[in-house]
Amino acid sequence: MFNTLMQMPLFRGVSYHQLSEVLGRHPFHFLKYTDNQTVISAGDLCTHLSTVVSGKVRMVIGSNDNKVRVSQTLEAPEPIAPDFFFGKTTSYPATVTADGTCGIMQIEKNDFIKIINSDSIFLFNYLNMLSMNAQLSTEGVLALTSGDLKKRIAYWIISLTQLNARDITMECRQRDLYSVFGVQRQSLTSALNEMKQAGILDYTPTRIDITDRRLLIDLLES
Amino acid sequence: MFNTLMQMPLFRGVSYHQLSEVLGRHPFHFLKYTDNQTVISAGDLCTHLSTVVSGKVRMVIGSNDNKVRVSQTLEAPEPIAPDFFFGKTTSYPATVTADGTCGIMQIEKNDFIKIINSDSIFLFNYLNMLSMNAQLSTEGVLALTSGDLKKRIAYWIISLTQLNARDITMECRQRDLYSVFGVQRQSLTSALNEMKQAGILDYTPTRIDITDRRLLIDLLES
Repeated sequence: MFNTLMQMPLFRGVSYHQLSEVLGRHPFHFLKYTDNQTVISAGDLCTHLSTVVSGKVRMVIGSNDNKVRVSQTLEAPEPIAPDFFFGKTTSYPATVTADGTCGIMQIEKNDFIKIINSDSIFLFNYLNMLSMNAQLSTEGVLALTSGDLKKRIAYWIISLTQLNARDITMECRQRDLYSVFGVQRQSLTSALNEMKQAGILDYTPTRIDITDRRLLIDLLES
Repeated sequence: MFNTLMQMPLFRGVSYHQLSEVLGRHPFHFLKYTDNQTVISAGDLCTHLSTVVSGKVRMVIGSNDNKVRVSQTLEAPEPIAPDFFFGKTTSYPATVTADGTCGIMQIEKNDFIKIINSDSIFLFNYLNMLSMNAQLSTEGVLALTSGDLKKRIAYWIISLTQLNARDITMECRQRDLYSVFGVQRQSLTSALNEMKQAGILDYTPTRIDITDRRLLIDLLES
């Protein structure tokens, strides 16, 4: 468990000694969930920073009209929606359920602030995480000025998933997808086919399965 | 000057006494620029947090192919691109020039970290600022699933400008704009006309002038 914690993005570069001290000084809650149990419901307040520390969870984010749903698997060690802990919206945008038995570590907001204030490595890790996501909208939109629909699809899925997400799936009826992207059927099919041939995704009339999120980032940055 | 600093987003909620202490303990550099002088060139490394503390600057961000350029005015007190200080990209995405005589305050990265570590109000303000921008790509993309082109235009301009930006202008030939947004001429014209009638913007064949950024946010959230 200790080794898993040391691999957490927030604790990267921290010594064994420093982490022991932090664990000793602040209350960390460890919770167990069984397969399919709800860990977080979309709309729940982010009062704690929750991190998957064993097993994995499935996280699902949907549009208000429920036409589009994007699902991703987060494997330990991975924080859950760390961008929604401060800022304008401090409630979770997604529903998270256990995928098999899994363990979640929770740190209360006040303790979390004390931790990142206690050493600049913690602070640096968290600022890097937030800034990377804050830069996404600027850099993503600049990358989209080529007008390439494939990049637009890539940007959407990147925006709705975390850096280390796996088994990413976008569920949407294809006819809804035309209107979501504001394009004709043929343009969408041809973009999806090109992405399929490039090994980036596979698709059926109701879902798109992403091979690897990094391929989407490569496409966006190309 | 002191009153202006106290109104800076980073120093919001901080007492006169606390701010005096911070100013006494850390070196703050105050620089003067004359009209049209370059303050920052796109690509410059973010080694300092730069804040407009008197007058105003014009900030211009362009796509790689230079087809689209978005300009905005930042008035004192306003930090310049605070999202690009940490994270994957630590260089400025935009060029900034003085709009009339203006004053810029610079804080070195190491001092900045010490300041936000010295009191949780500073830290809180910065975390809120970053998180709000980090949430933008998720919330923006979710808002776009309606497929409304007007919302898409709003999202693009919001993504490329800061919260308190004024006099926002998007420069782009209209025929390039069709391909950027991947739509037919008529769809674009009709979206721009509706936005013009709603008082959100005005446009010519080569530029779009935004009345007020908050109207774009209202449209995106509606």
